[in-house]
Formats: sequence, C-alpha cells, structure tokens
Amino acid sequence: MEKKIYIGAGYYPEHWPRERWPKDIAMMKEAGIKVLRLAELSWSFLEPRDGEFDFSWLDDFIELASKEGLQFILGTPFEASPPWVRHQHPEVVRTDRFGRIHGERGMHCKNNKALIFYIDRLVNKMATHYANNDAVIGWQIDNELRNVECYCQDCREGFVKWLQERYGTLDKLNETWGTKFWSQVYNSWEEVTPPSADQLTISISQKLDFTRFGSDSTVEHISRQVDIIKKHAPHQFVTHNMLGWYERLNSYDVADKLDFIGWDCYPSVDGDNHIETLLHDHYRSAKHKGHWVLEQKNGYFNYSDYNLANEPGLVRLWSYQDIARGADGILYYRWRSNRYSNEQNPNGLLRHDGSPRRPYYEVQQMTKELAKFEDELATTTVEAPVAIFYDFDQMWAFDAHKQYRNFDHRGHILTYYRALTKMGVTADLVNPTTDLSKYKVVIAPSMAMVSDEIYENIKSYVENGGSLIIGARSGMKDWANVTIEEPWPGKLAELAGLIIDEFEVLPDRYANSIFYNGKEYPVKVWLDMLETNTAESLATYKQKFYAGRTAVAKNQYGNGTVYYVGVMGSDEFASDFLTDIVNELGIPNGTLPKGIFVSSRVNENVRYTFYININREPTAVTVQENGFDVIKEKNVSGEVIIDGLDVLIVKS
Amino acid sequence: MEKKIYIGAGYYPEHWPRERWPKDIAMMKEAGIKVLRLAELSWSFLEPRDGEFDFSWLDDFIELASKEGLQFILGTPFEASPPWVRHQHPEVVRTDRFGRIHGERGMHCKNNKALIFYIDRLVNKMATHYANNDAVIGWQIDNELRNVECYCQDCREGFVKWLQERYGTLDKLNETWGTKFWSQVYNSWEEVTPPSADQLTISISQKLDFTRFGSDSTVEHISRQVDIIKKHAPHQFVTHNMLGWYERLNSYDVADKLDFIGWDCYPSVDGDNHIETLLHDHYRSAKHKGHWVLEQKNGYFNYSDYNLANEPGLVRLWSYQDIARGADGILYYRWRSNRYSNEQNPNGLLRHDGSPRRPYYEVQQMTKELAKFEDELATTTVEAPVAIFYDFDQMWAFDAHKQYRNFDHRGHILTYYRALTKMGVTADLVNPTTDLSKYKVVIAPSMAMVSDEIYENIKSYVENGGSLIIGARSGMKDWANVTIEEPWPGKLAELAGLIIDEFEVLPDRYANSIFYNGKEYPVKVWLDMLETNTAESLATYKQKFYAGRTAVAKNQYGNGTVYYVGVMGSDEFASDFLTDIVNELGIPNGTLPKGIFVSSRVNENVRYTFYININREPTAVTVQENGFDVIKEKNVSGEVIIDGLDVLIVKS
Amino acid sequence: MEKKIYIGAGYYPEHWPRERWPKDIAMMKEAGIKVLRLAELSWSFLEPRDGEFDFSWLDDFIELASKEGLQFILGTPFEASPPWVRHQHPEVVRTDRFGRIHGERGMHCKNNKALIFYIDRLVNKMATHYANNDAVIGWQIDNELRNVECYCQDCREGFVKWLQERYGTLDKLNETWGTKFWSQVYNSWEEVTPPSADQLTISISQKLDFTRFGSDSTVEHISRQVDIIKKHAPHQFVTHNMLGWYERLNSYDVADKLDFIGWDCYPSVDGDNHIETLLHDHYRSAKHKGHWVLEQKNGYFNYSDYNLANEPGLVRLWSYQDIARGADGILYYRWRSNRYSNEQNPNGLLRHDGSPRRPYYEVQQMTKELAKFEDELATTTVEAPVAIFYDFDQMWAFDAHKQYRNFDHRGHILTYYRALTKMGVTADLVNPTTDLSKYKVVIAPSMAMVSDEIYENIKSYVENGGSLIIGARSGMKDWANVTIEEPWPGKLAELAGLIIDEFEVLPDRYANSIFYNGKEYPVKVWLDMLETNTAESLATYKQKFYAGRTAVAKNQYGNGTVYYVGVMGSDEFASDFLTDIVNELGIPNGTLPKGIFVSSRVNENVRYTFYININREPTAVTVQENGFDVIKEKNVSGEVIIDGLDVLIVKS
Repeated sequence: MEKKIYIGAGYYPEHWPRERWPKDIAMMKEAGIKVLRLAELSWSFLEPRDGEFDFSWLDDFIELASKEGLQFILGTPFEASPPWVRHQHPEVVRTDRFGRIHGERGMHCKNNKALIFYIDRLVNKMATHYANNDAVIGWQIDNELRNVECYCQDCREGFVKWLQERYGTLDKLNETWGTKFWSQVYNSWEEVTPPSADQLTISISQKLDFTRFGSDSTVEHISRQVDIIKKHAPHQFVTHNMLGWYERLNSYDVADKLDFIGWDCYPSVDGDNHIETLLHDHYRSAKHKGHWVLEQKNGYFNYSDYNLANEPGLVRLWSYQDIARGADGILYYRWRSNRYSNEQNPNGLLRHDGSPRRPYYEVQQMTKELAKFEDELATTTVEAPVAIFYDFDQMWAFDAHKQYRNFDHRGHILTYYRALTKMGVTADLVNPTTDLSKYKVVIAPSMAMVSDEIYENIKSYVENGGSLIIGARSGMKDWANVTIEEPWPGKLAELAGLIIDEFEVLPDRYANSIFYNGKEYPVKVWLDMLETNTAESLATYKQKFYAGRTAVAKNQYGNGTVYYVGVMGSDEFASDFLTDIVNELGIPNGTLPKGIFVSSRVNENVRYTFYININREPTAVTVQENGFDVIKEKNVSGEVIIDGLDVLIVKS
Repeated sequence: MEKKIYIGAGYYPEHWPRERWPKDIAMMKEAGIKVLRLAELSWSFLEPRDGEFDFSWLDDFIELASKEGLQFILGTPFEASPPWVRHQHPEVVRTDRFGRIHGERGMHCKNNKALIFYIDRLVNKMATHYANNDAVIGWQIDNELRNVECYCQDCREGFVKWLQERYGTLDKLNETWGTKFWSQVYNSWEEVTPPSADQLTISISQKLDFTRFGSDSTVEHISRQVDIIKKHAPHQFVTHNMLGWYERLNSYDVADKLDFIGWDCYPSVDGDNHIETLLHDHYRSAKHKGHWVLEQKNGYFNYSDYNLANEPGLVRLWSYQDIARGADGILYYRWRSNRYSNEQNPNGLLRHDGSPRRPYYEVQQMTKELAKFEDELATTTVEAPVAIFYDFDQMWAFDAHKQYRNFDHRGHILTYYRALTKMGVTADLVNPTTDLSKYKVVIAPSMAMVSDEIYENIKSYVENGGSLIIGARSGMKDWANVTIEEPWPGKLAELAGLIIDEFEVLPDRYANSIFYNGKEYPVKVWLDMLETNTAESLATYKQKFYAGRTAVAKNQYGNGTVYYVGVMGSDEFASDFLTDIVNELGIPNGTLPKGIFVSSRVNENVRYTFYININREPTAVTVQENGFDVIKEKNVSGEVIIDGLDVLIVKS
Repeated sequence: MEKKIYIGAGYYPEHWPRERWPKDIAMMKEAGIKVLRLAELSWSFLEPRDGEFDFSWLDDFIELASKEGLQFILGTPFEASPPWVRHQHPEVVRTDRFGRIHGERGMHCKNNKALIFYIDRLVNKMATHYANNDAVIGWQIDNELRNVECYCQDCREGFVKWLQERYGTLDKLNETWGTKFWSQVYNSWEEVTPPSADQLTISISQKLDFTRFGSDSTVEHISRQVDIIKKHAPHQFVTHNMLGWYERLNSYDVADKLDFIGWDCYPSVDGDNHIETLLHDHYRSAKHKGHWVLEQKNGYFNYSDYNLANEPGLVRLWSYQDIARGADGILYYRWRSNRYSNEQNPNGLLRHDGSPRRPYYEVQQMTKELAKFEDELATTTVEAPVAIFYDFDQMWAFDAHKQYRNFDHRGHILTYYRALTKMGVTADLVNPTTDLSKYKVVIAPSMAMVSDEIYENIKSYVENGGSLIIGARSGMKDWANVTIEEPWPGKLAELAGLIIDEFEVLPDRYANSIFYNGKEYPVKVWLDMLETNTAESLATYKQKFYAGRTAVAKNQYGNGTVYYVGVMGSDEFASDFLTDIVNELGIPNGTLPKGIFVSSRVNENVRYTFYININREPTAVTVQENGFDVIKEKNVSGEVIIDGLDVLIVKS
C-alpha cells in the first residue's frame, strides 16, 4: 500500500443516473479526490434477491472511475438488510430486553444464525469478485458498528457459552458474580440468562459480562468477515469506521483484527474541538499507527437538534486537524447530498442538485496545498510523551452501575486531557495493558476495577522509573465489578503508599476545597479522604469534618513516582498540578492561547508541527524552532499570526 | 334547516334519575337552551347486549323534552365501546407499534372488521328509528375523532391496499419513497409494512403515508356512517366535533363528508385567545360556511394541570367570540357536571348537585341579548381578505421528520396570524388547493413540500394578480417528503425569482438579524440565504459570513407579486412587513389595543362587527362607521369604552 | 418478651467465611449489639434446591453467637427468590400492565399459586425448626413489602373474587363505580378486569379498588406466614419492616397481623428530619404501641444520586431520635458493608474489609449511655395530644386521580405537621376510624372521600367536645372515588356549618391571599370559596372576583368545634392558626429554635424528654421542669446549650 495521504469521499453510484457518473468523476478529479468508499449500504443492489447477486452496476462504475485513476474501498453492506432478508427472518433484528423484536438503524443481532449465513455468503462472493481488481485497495467491514444488546434465543445460548468459556464451572461463576447476594445462586447453566427484563433482579456483574459478550460478538462479526476477505485478497487492507465517542465497543479488540482502524468524525461547528482531538488521539493509539477518518463531516449532520452553517475554512481546518493528529486518510461524507428519508440535510461536497457546495472548493484548496509535502508527511507519525488510560471494561462497569448521578467518567478524563492540550502536550489514550515504557507520565482517571494484568503492567512501569497519576475512585473493585475484600485502594495501596479511609460524593450544589502549593481550589463530585503511609501529602481538604486530611499524595515506588489525586472537578487544579509534573520531567510545554491546538508528526529526519486556530479571529502563536511554513512556503520563527479558522504547518 | 343561531348543551339523560328530567328541561328553557346533543357516549344503553337494542329511554326523554320545544342532535356512540364488545373482540382496541393491544380513550381500530360490523348495524338501527322524528334535527358522527395509529393485521392489510391504490406498482412505490436509501428496496408487496417497531428502519416517506392512511381510514369511518344515515334521513344534518388544534386528521376531507363541520372549544382562562380564533378561522374555512361549536367549555377542563375559576363574563365572552368568527351553533359542554371517573370537575352549567353554576346565568343573559338580533345575524357569514395555508400533508411531513428541535411550524403560522389579528384583519386558514381568487393576500408559511396541484393553484393565483407570501423552509421536497433533484426552492424558484443558496438552523441560544426598511430585526430558527434572480432584495442579513446576503425578496410574476421571507422568529418583523403589504393592497386595517379582537359577519345588506375585550380592564376601541350597539340598543361611533371581559356588537 | 431497648444489626453469616464469625461476634459484644436479624434474604441457602432444605449453616452460627448472649430475629426470605424457583415458574415474577413478566427487586406476584406453595412449605420448615430455640426471639415476615401491581391470570381471578366479596352483585359494582360513564357497563363478571393496558379506558374507581386489592393481597401474604409461625411458636414475636414513606400498603392492616410493627429508617444527611419523625409518629400510631426500627441507616444509602459522609455524631443522633419517638428496638443496617452488585457503598458498621467505621464507635458510645437508664425507659411510651389523619384509601384515591399536578397531599400533611413540630407538640398519624377520644385536636387534611364509618367517628368525636380541623378539598367524594350527589362538602356540611360554593386550583405561578386576625397570608394550590351557614368566618380572600368570600371558618357542633380551612400552601398561616387553637385548648407548647426536636416518653411515674439538635452548631433550649440529664448525669433546668448534632435527655 502506497505511503501517501489518501483523500477521498463516500459515494453511492446506485443512487444516481449512470449518465451523471462521468460528470461526478470529472469533478472528483478536479477537487483532488482520489479514493471512493462504495457499497457499504448497498445490499439491496448487490443481492437483490436471496442468492441472486448482481455486481454489474458496481463493476461498471469501478471500471469507468478507475480509468480516471480513482481507487476504491468497498464496504461490506451489513448495516442495512433488505426487506427480503427480514421478511424471511424477522429475528435478524435485535430482540430487546422485553423480548420484542425491536428495530433501529443497524440493530441486527450479531449472533443470529440466518444472518451469519447471508453475511458469510455475500462477503465470499464480493471478496472473490474483487480480489484481483487493482483499483480496489481495501475493505470497510460493516459500518459504524455498535454493541447491539440482543436477548434472542441465539444470544441467550451464546452468552451462556461465553460464560462457560470464561469461568469454566458454575461454582466459579457464582463465586465471581457474588450470587450469594440476594440469593441468586445458580444451580444449573440452564438457569443462567442475559439481564433481560423478566429476571427478578439483575446483578451488575452480570450486566458487565453481558456488555463484554456483546462487544466480543461484534468483534467476532468483524473477524469472520476479515478472515474471508484475507483468504481471497490478502493484499487488500481491511478497516472499520468506528462511531466517535462510543464506549460500548472495545476498539482495541477491533483494531487487533484490522490493518488499521478508522473512525467517523462529525465535529460541531460551535464545539471546542477537544472531543475530536481526544478521539484522534485514542484511535491512533488503538493500534499505535496511523488511522483513517472514513467519514469526515463536510456539511450538515442529520441527527442534530440544529445545524449551524460551516463557516468558510472550517472543513479545511477539520481536515488538517485530522492529519495533525495522525490520520493518513480522509474520506468526506459524502460526495453528493442525499435526497431520501432521515438524511436530507445538505451533507455532501455537492448539493442535492449536483452543484458544488462551498466545502468542495475548500477540499480542492487543501489537496493542492497538500500536494507540496504530502509524500514526506505520509512517512511521519505522531508521538506522545503522556498516556491516559481509556479502558472499556472500566467504562462498562460504570455503565452497569454508575452509583452516583453526577459522577462523569468521561468528564474526569477530559479534565486531564484539556489540561494537557492547553500546555501543548500530546497524549495517547491507551489500553492500560499496553506497553507503557515509552511514556514519561501515565494518567489513570478513576480506575475503579484493577485486574492482575493491569496491576503488573503499572507496577513494572513505576518500578522502572515511570510517573503514574491515579485519579479518585480507584482500586475499589475486582475485575467482575465486585468490591474487593482488602482495604481500598487494594492492590494500589502499596504503589500509592496510602489507604482510602472514607470518601464522599457531593451533589452539584455542594463543593469542598483543597490547598495545594499555597493555593485554594474548589473540588467536587467525588472526594477520597486519604491516610498516607509511605506517601507524602501534597494537598489537604479545607472544609467539613475532614478538613486537614490528605486529598492528594505522592509516593516514591521503585525508581518511579505514584501520585494519588483523590479529588475531581477542578480544571484549574488539574492544569497547575500537571504543569508541575510535566516541568519536573522536562517534557516540553507552554501555555497556548485559547483555541489553538498544537501537535507534531515526526520521523527520524523531520518534524511537521501543526498549529490549528479554531478561533474566528487571528491569533498569535510562538514557533519555537526556525522552520518552514509548508503552505505559504516561507521561513517562520518566533511570533506568527494565524488567521481565524486557519492553519500553520511548520516543517523543521 | 332553520336559519338561526342554535344554542344548546350536551346532556346525558341516562346518567340521571327520570324524576329529575322535567326539572332539567324547565331549567333549560329558562336559560334559552334549545338544542341538546344526546347519546354520543351511550352504546351501553342503546345496545346493552350484542344485538339487543333499547332506545326506549332515549325515546322517552326526547318525547318529554320535545314537548317543551327542544331539538336534538344524536351522537353515534362509538368513542366508547361497552365491555361486551371488547370481551368478544379485544382487537377492536388499537394495536400499538410494538404489537400490543393498547387502549386509551377512543383508541379503536378504524379498520377492524368486527367493529365495522357493530357500527354499521347500530347506525342503521338508530337512523331507521329516528329518521322520522321531527325533533331530531341532525347527527354527530362519533366524538372528537383522532387518527388512531393501529398496527393490527387488518391495518397492515389495509395499508398495503391503500398503497397499491396510490402507487399502482411496487416499482413506483420504491421509486417514490426512495427505498434505494439504506437498501430498503421491496421485492414483493408482502414485504411492505406499516412503520411498526419491529422494522429495522423506518422511512419518513413511509411514515407520512401511514399518517395519510390513518386519516383516510378515519374519514372512511365517518363516510360509512353518513351514507347509512343519509339513506334513511337525508333531511337530517350530519356533522362532527373535531378536536381543537389537532393536526392528525385532515379536516378538509372530514368537512367534505358533512353538512357542516363542528369543533370543541376549550379556551384557557389565562390564555390569550389567539389559538381559539385561529381554529374558528380554520374550521369555518374548512367548508367555507358557518361551523358549529359542538362543545363550548363553560366550566373546568378535566385534563388540565390546574383550573382557574372562570371569571364572571368569560363564558358569555367566549360564546360571542364563537359567533363573531362564524359559528352558527353553540352547545355547552355539559348541562350538568359529571360525577364519575376522570371527569369529576365542575364542568356543567349546573353543579354536580343539580343547582345552577354562574355560567348558567351568563348563558341566560346571552340568549336574551341574542334574541334581539339573531335572526338577521344568522344570515351573515365571515369574509376574510387574507388566506393562510393550513396544510395537513405539510404538518404530517414535519411530524414524520421535523429535523430540527426548535422548528415550530405551528409557531410559524401563529407569527403571521398574530400580526394580522393585531391589525384587525381576518384570515381564512385554508387548504392550499382551495380556490384562492377571492383573497388579496395568501400566506404560505413553510411549504416544504409542493405538489403539482398546489403549484398550479398558486401559480394561477399569482398570474392573475394575487399577492403570495412564502415563508422560510419552502420548496425543498416533493409530495413524498423526499428532497427534489432541482435547486431549491424547486418549482417555486421561478415564482419567487430566486434560489436558496444555503440555509442554517439556529438553536435557541443564537440569533442573526436583518435590515428591512432601515430597521433591524432579530431573526431566529431557520434562515435561508437567498440568491435573487428576477427578484428584488427587500431585506439582508447583518451578521456572520453571509452578512449582506438577501433574507427577504419580492418578485413580480404575471400580474401578481411573490414575496419570499427566508427568516423566522420575529413577530415585530412579521407585523411591520404585513402592514406594508396590506396597506399597499388597500385592505382596511388599524392597530388594535392588546386584548381586543375584531371581526365581522356580513351579508349583502348588513354588517355586524364584533369587538371582544379579553382584558380584565375597560379598553377603548374606535368604531369606524356609525353603527348601532345591538346589545345596549343605542347608536355608537368613534371611541367606545368596552368593559373588561365584555363585548360590543355594532350593526352597520 | 423482656422489656428493654433492643439494639442490634442485620447480619449475613452466609456471606462471610466461618473463620471470621468469632471475630464479628466479639466485635458485636464490644459495641453493645445484642440482637441480630438473620436470613431475610437467604432462600438460596435455606433451600438450595426445590425441597432440599439446609439450615445447618444458620444453626451453626446461632449456636456460636447465642453462647455469647446474642438473640435473633429470623427473616422469612421471600423478597428474593432463587433462580431455581423462577426457572420452574417464571410467572412468580410480576406481570405488568402490558402483560409482560417484568422483574425488579421484590416484584413477586403475591397471588401466584406456585409461590404460595413454596412460601408456606419453607415457613413451616423454619418455624418448626426454630420454634424451640430460645435465642430466636422473633420473626420478620418478608422484607420491605410493596403493593406489587400484578396483572397475571391468578391476579385477574383474585381481583374478581375480591370484587364479588366486596360488592356481591354486578349491579352493585356497576352502580358504585359509575360504569354508566363512557358506556362501561359490565354484563358479566367475565368482562371485569384489572386496569391493564389493553382496556379501552380505565375508571379511577377501578384503579382505587385494584390498589385496595393489591394491599389486601400483601396483607394476606403476611397473614398466612404469621398463622404458620404462631401455630408452632406462639411465644416468638412477628413483625415486619415497612418501607419509609411508602403509601401503597395499608400499615394499619399490616400492624393488625403483627405483635408490633417496624420500619426501615434511612434519613438524609442533609435532610431536615421531619419526614423521619413523621414516620415514627405514624408507625407508632399504627398499633398504638412501641415500634421498632428494623433497619437504621448508619452508612451510605445505595440508591441515592449522591452520598454525603455522615458527620460525626449523626448516627447516634438518629438513634436517639428513634427512641424519642417511641422505638423500642433499633437494628443497624448492616453489620458489615456489602461487596456485591447494587449495594457496594459503605453501608455497614464495619467496612467491607471488616474494620470498624466511625458509626461503630458511635453505637458503642450510645449503648454505654443507654445502659444507665434503658430499663426504665423501656417502660415508657410516647403520648400525643393531637392526631393527624393518615388515610391510605384517601392517598390511593389521589393516586388514582390526582386531577391537578401541583396538588400535593403529602405536602399538605407536612404543612400541619411542621407547624406542630415547631411548637413542640407531638402528633399521632392515625387511621380516621381509630378511637379519637384521647386527642384534644384532630386534623384531617384533604379528606376528599368520606365513608360512613369515618363520618360517624368524627361526628361523635366532635359531639363529645373534640376540636376537628378539616383541610381544603374535603367532602367531595364517596368511598368509591365518585363525586357525591349532594352539595359539597356533603356529609361534612352540617359539621362544618357551611357549603363549598366554588373552588379553584392555581398553578405554581399564581397565588391569592387571605386575611386572618388582621394579617395577610399568601395561599396557593387549592382554594375553596366557602358559604357559611351556621359557621363563623375566620378568614376571607383578598384578591380576584371572590375577594371578601370566606376561606376559613369555625363552627360549634355539639360540644365541639369544627374548623374548615379552605386553603393550602402557607406554612406561616398553618403555624399561627394552630398556635391559636392549641393555646385555646391549653396544650403545652412553645416555639422551638430551628433544628430542635422535642418529644417525651412517659409512664405513670416518670417522663423522659428528648431534645435533639440536628443543627451543626450548639443551640440553646429551655428545659421547663427541673430535671436530670441522664447522659451527663447532672441536674438541669432553664436554658441549656446542646452541642451540634447532640442530644439532651431529661428525666423528670
């Protein structure tokens, strides 16, 4: 696969008259569009009737467009099943927890035997057919997959089998879930069920495992298709377009099956862009290699309560942000605006009537700019000195039992992430079991459950000199979402050099405050009262009966350092505290103006630093090294003014 | 049918001891009550057991009361089926989208074959029995009919049949709905379903058609009963009492089956009365003839979160408002307050204990006043120089896919309506396919879908010199709720002399503003950015990247004028803008004090102008022509003070 | 049963290793814990398989612990059925109104024949086994029972049978429910159903009766178990732990089956404690004898949106409050914090790791203090000069049809209750049919329905010199939730010497005001406009068209006095008004500082007066009589300062 920055779009030739195809292809070329994603929602056209396949329309289009140099990613079209499938097998649609067949976009049961038969057969046909088509460079497996909670008979049986494989014996299951609580001890595997609505009570351990099973079922759905494709076409890549901040599907497991991972990026016009950069940082870290944006919003989002017009420059800016954070490919969604059903907003580079919308010209401008340096840029990757744990089991456990309404795990991660972004420090959002040795700092916000594997990983990281920051509400549970029998924070107690004596969880109307380095910070939500052992107290509470007790502590362990931050809710504290640590460790940083994002792509020879200005006004940044502005093609250093919604890319 | 203003009440003789009947009849006479609606909820009494009919109690009451000069409207009693019906046929109750039989007041399946059998049989019996009873002047078909969404087998089959009649072939259906989107192409009619919850995805075109089918099924339910009654009693009128602002049932189709249309009027004590006048203006326009108020609230509404006591004068004021807007009949709901179940608030002219409540005396006062001029008044009708489109297909399309949370079609209509009311200009709320030639101005707020029939109607109206105002979000879709393939506003582009280049939809927290005639107006919600062609720009945007672009434009077309108003959300702009147009066209108008409603009933000889003061304080109005105050029986002209909650009726 | 104050805890020996048992027992002794509640959630352990019983683990624990002097209350373990039960009989779980088996904690059908078989068999086994165990002093029947709305076949049949017993004939049922309304007349018992979702309409009389049936079914579930236990072990007491402010289960009927009643007390850390004292006052009055707190919160509540840490002293304060209001036993929930599923907050006297939490030491302190005077204290009871009606039928009727969103029956009761608390006057919350002769004042807030039995009771109370205060919205309905046919307030008209001419119900944004004794009070929600007959007007309205009309009236009837208070919503008026009445009747009272609760336990010889300070700051109280501070063991009188969250107990 050629090293370059792939720019493309999603296209539906089956939606438009054939007479229009040549015009579309010509316009794509003019805009610098070189890759098309096809067929990911086209089951009705690829297999109009059970066992009757028709690839001719797709062949015709590919033939026509490949002559003009376009390349193709084919979707396996399983997000939308045709009516004939459901007419024969209504149960391919998810059965909800009340036992009702209950549809919604993409809500197919992933364990349904009939559906599996159809999927395997069609993937086989497609892979055989396109394996030797040089213009087809890869495959997208299904579309924006979700962890579909299905309670059908196939899923019930699948879940029990999954539990048998995980736990071996029923005794072990009873023991692990704690079924002694409320007399829910199982006597036989036949009594074990998913957490359906007809059960008297539902254990949160059972809920957690059912989420794991659902994620695994989806990964297996991908894996089966990948195996078929790779059998026929090992040279074509496989990928998947993950939903944005969607926490129900384990992206590490998905990435593991793919050549690279992709996601669909739909920023808000009036958003502050942190969620998008965080997701880039996560998906890049999911496989520790360049990712793709398989759908980049260029127009109106169809599922919003409102739609602000994209201001001029915004689509180009989003695109550079994608690349700045590690994306090696960007496909706009979609080429031409759709006319039907729920997606009738202007969401294409072209209007519904086939004429170009403003973003068309922005993409054209960007592809021309990129042409000057994309070959070298494509050989670089993003490197980050800091890792933040982004742990699906943890998130699922909080979903299964959040306990407190205003505990916001996502917000807690964002508090640390924003602090780093503000100082220009890039972070990877990683699996806690990943190799941590390359990171100078590792942040673990609310690691309530600690597995042996995670514990060994962080222990060895710290022993070898790493700096670990543990957030409040950590170390309380085992991997089954059950409270440990030891004093909190359990396994982490020795690392952190303290125990958690008590905690309290405040509603929004209350706060406490802490003293840190002589300054007072309000703290909220979850407050751990710490009893230090070998640790040193860094901050203490100011109010209530636990005034004077430790809120934040630091412990030397092996060659490393462990910080336990027993509080939440203060962006200012997170910022000041991380700045102190980052400075101590000599990680380059500097306070950036609001609205400026900085990140770098590097290889052994070159560094491309991206300065993205999401402000609507010109904003000054300081370029540290002498460098070369690759867009304006001139040398830059020191203070540089970047226009509103503009980008500065400095090569050094 | 005698020309007069019919004053009456809803009465349930079967609820009260026979010994009480004479007293009630005497009290009715004293209050000027002359018409009673009977039996509309009395199935249990008319047919106590399957096939056993008992009309004796009703005969007895009618005999007794008709001796005292009372006349009767009989209800066909199908809103409430007796338990024996449902015990034999539980499926007469609506099946919801999850497949559950799911009751609620009036929620009968209108396509259920068993129910149809019972209905036809009982209507036949009743019509035969009462056809020759002179005191029975007419019939009310069922009660406050709704478009019941039912997903039972009969409805599934009915829907497919309806689609077959509409589209002929499956290819045409696939084409029209755009089933190519998300691979929902139907291979056989057996695959076609209502939008039930077990479907994978639901097309908004399918939803729109299912609403149409539901409305048509309800109209058919009326039509079948009308045919039976008219066969036996062609001289007795048929009507129906529509729910107030209920948009799910096409009132034009209903009116078409009836001699005249009625509705149930339940104003809020602290409301501003615009919704009620708008509904009068609509129901009057549904058949372009005098309508009835078949239930006029006189007491407490039983389905409110609170109940303010009716202040003295309010029931009389509401009644005159009914007449002022074209009503030829008013029946109070109800004679005596109910004692049972969900309707136990004081909702009668009498208390639950049989003694008169205050409104009893207000009605008495009003019938005495009316006696002085009702004969002539009954020969007059309301005439309006302006029409506003009130289009059910449009409303259903927005229901099927509103797209944006704060888009409020009803609010958009009200903006124009309030502006006209404030200047004393009466509007008809009409079907866009109605004959428009008599209107000086036609307003089409948010006409997103444009059918060929509507297009031809408005085109011819404008060509012949009419003035048409088109509101924002118009001309985007075809009649199947599918985006057109041409530039927006499609068919309207030529009429309006412009195209819509872009639009944006703001959340409540944002606004833009426009300049019109040197004045700045904030605008909200939906903003079209217009590119004029033959049109002249009347107003431009002030803010954001599209500052200076056209927001409102005017185009000469044929002998007429088309205005395109690409903005929403400013009452002040609507008022100033309409005033300019109305003045230009020479339509009499003048700014009314807040709380004053003015409208006229006219015939070739006489004009009755009603001034209604919903303020609690005396308010001054200016009587333009010399006239005669028919209540106080004296001449009036110039400034007149109307008491709080009082009415001035000027004959001229 | 020995007269003492029983202090204990809930314990689950089956959750912890046997090796731990001796340590737990030792720690219990050190803290003064003397009673344990066991087995109330242990069905899986008592009957691991259908018909296989295993009491050995419980025997072993009881043997070990009883040697150390502990006593035991055994729970019948039916809140949680084991999976084997539900696998054989899924329908033991409640069927919801849509016909779905729909679980949730404790949601068992109480009429299910299979479940009844299992319950009776296990209770029999347990009672036989433990009848002669001296350490077992009593039984708790099931746990926190709720009125489970179940619509299964057994419940349908049970409901019809219940109706047949209540009404005898179908005619009587039709008549009582008013099925003539909306043509719901039943022709046969087969047509009669619970208010399930498939019914066309649901009568509020039907809903009320279904709630009565549900409560009766739950009482029968208790009664059956009590009979079995008493057959084998008449010397062991039976009780039940009622949910706190739970209005769906008639506590008078429950208390009637038990030796004494208990409840589970979970105060909020930041609550004002009135709800808890009110519930003590109610449960004490439910059987007019000392009640128990079978679960006293000592830690975090598991079903809260947040959890404030218990401040030091709070658990001891709550415990004394329990006793001050009449509790003769307190069991803390629970001994050691749980580790599993939904209840993983620190909710034990011990932590999850087995070490003591702060409340452990507070309980230890309290048991030491109590030892000084508990023998005498246990011979005293609370006596109250005032009764407030707390009527389940009334509450169920409002549930079945609240009519107005902001009518808050609970809030209305609290208005009167707070006023009494503030002046240090203790109230009983009683069944309106109870013997009222001992009360100087009886308050009946919103007695909408009046039965003959209640009427006779209050009439005779007033005739014999009692003072009765009737709140707004009274006397409107009969016992079937149907409006009476007489003028309002019906039977109460003669007692109160007035009729209700009109009423209005204001939304939150409106108020009116009244004049009483020359002072103006805002009034809200429900306003009755009174027409006095023999009564004297005490207060009149100030605003709107009914200004000057009577709002509050006083009537001499027999030897007593009846006040009708036709307004709601003013704490200040309630306070001033009740103070006037209480003073007139010579009931000792005095305005207490905010946050101070005073109540007394007395017998013929001695009075223990409790002063509870829920303020966080020291607060001064005035001790009226010379007395002896039994905790500090010194004489006290006059002004005494009580520390924040501290208690003063004065013996006199």
